[in-house]
Amino acid sequence: MVLRVQVRSRGRSDLIDITEKIRALVRESKVQDGICFLYVPHTTAGILINENADPSVARDILNELERLIPWDGHYQHREGNAAAHIKSSLAGASETIFIEAGELALGTWQGIYLAEFDGPRQRNVWVKFLVTQK
Amino acid sequence: MVLRVQVRSRGRSDLIDITEKIRALVRESKVQDGICFLYVPHTTAGILINENADPSVARDILNELERLIPWDGHYQHREGNAAAHIKSSLAGASETIFIEAGELALGTWQGIYLAEFDGPRQRNVWVKFLVTQK
Amino acid sequence: MVLRVQVRSRGRSDLIDITEKIRALVRESKVQDGICFLYVPHTTAGILINENADPSVARDILNELERLIPWDGHYQHREGNAAAHIKSSLAGASETIFIEAGELALGTWQGIYLAEFDGPRQRNVWVKFLVTQK
Repeated sequence: MVLRVQVRSRGRSDLIDITEKIRALVRESKVQDGICFLYVPHTTAGILINENADPSVARDILNELERLIPWDGHYQHREGNAAAHIKSSLAGASETIFIEAGELALGTWQGIYLAEFDGPRQRNVWVKFLVTQK
Repeated sequence: MVLRVQVRSRGRSDLIDITEKIRALVRESKVQDGICFLYVPHTTAGILINENADPSVARDILNELERLIPWDGHYQHREGNAAAHIKSSLAGASETIFIEAGELALGTWQGIYLAEFDGPRQRNVWVKFLVTQK
Repeated sequence: MVLRVQVRSRGRSDLIDITEKIRALVRESKVQDGICFLYVPHTTAGILINENADPSVARDILNELERLIPWDGHYQHREGNAAAHIKSSLAGASETIFIEAGELALGTWQGIYLAEFDGPRQRNVWVKFLVTQK
C-alpha cells in the first residue's frame, strides 16, 4: 500500500517540514521494526533531510541553491522553470529512513523536508512501509 | 535476484531515458505491490529522475552541471575525468521507486535517466524488486 | 535490527572510506541475497559512493564542493556551519546497495564514503539488512 501526504508550498522555493506527518503515519502503521520509503512524484520538487531546529538552515539551503542555479539562468526549456528541474534533480526524489521500536529513527537534529522549487503548489509525498526482522 | 540493464551513452555527457526498459522489467516480474530498487555500479555515471517530456530539460540539467563543475576545472585526479566523478556523486547511485497495481508508480512527468558524465560508454543499471503487502 | 558503525573524521571536510566496515557487516549477517540500507543521522555529514582507488578523487570532490559552497559564504545560520548543512543536503542521507552471493555488490571502482562537512567529529552510520528472494 502506498500512502499519500499532501502539502501546500508557499513562494517559489520552500522547504516544507513534513517530519511530524511522517512520524504520525509511522505510528498509525504499527510497524515496530522496518523501513519508511518516501517518494516525491514531481519533477520540480524533491525531498531533503536536514536540520529543522533553526529555520535559518532551510533558508540558507534555498538561497544557496538559488545562487548556484539561478531562476533566470540561460536555459533552453521554454516553460521557464528549468532551474527548478535542475534543483530537484540534485535534491533527489526518494529517501529511505529506518523504523525502530515503532518510531521513525531520525538523527537528533534531522527533519524531513519537501523541497519546493517551483511553487506555490499543492504537492504530494508518497510513503510506503516495510516490516523487517527485529 | 539482480537484473541488469545495459545502455549505451552518446557524447561525454548524456541523460539516457531508461523508463520504458524499467517499466518492461516491472511487468515481466509480475510484482503487483512492491518496490523497484535501481543501482548504478559506476563512479562517473549516476541515476536521476526528472522530466522526459521536453528533451530540453535533460539538456539544461547537463549544461548547468557542466557550468557548475567544468570538465577543465582545477582537479588533482590524473585521469582527467574528475568532473565526472563529482557530478556522479551529486546525482547519486541509487533510486527507490514504488510498484502499484503491477506498474511502476512514477509521477506524471517523471522519467528515469542513466546520467552519463564520462561517455560515450556501455553502462549498466542494476535492478531489484521487492514484493510488499497490498 | 539497526547496526551502528562509528567513524572518526579528520579535518573540517573529509571523505572516510567505510567500504570494508560495511563489507564485514554484510558477511557477518550471512545474508545471501538482499539489500543493505545505509543511513547517516547527521545534518552536516552525508553519504557518497564513488571511486576509492585514487585518493585524489575524494580530494577533488571535497575541494569542488568547497569552491561551490564556500564555508565563508553569506549565510544566515548563526552557528557558522551553514555550508556543511547545504553540502550534506546535496550528498544525501541514505544509500541502498544490493547483496549478491553473500557479498556487497559494488561496482569495480566504487567505495562507500561517510562525507564529513563539519569535522573533526565522531560520526555514525546506521545499517540495516533485508533478505530478498534469490
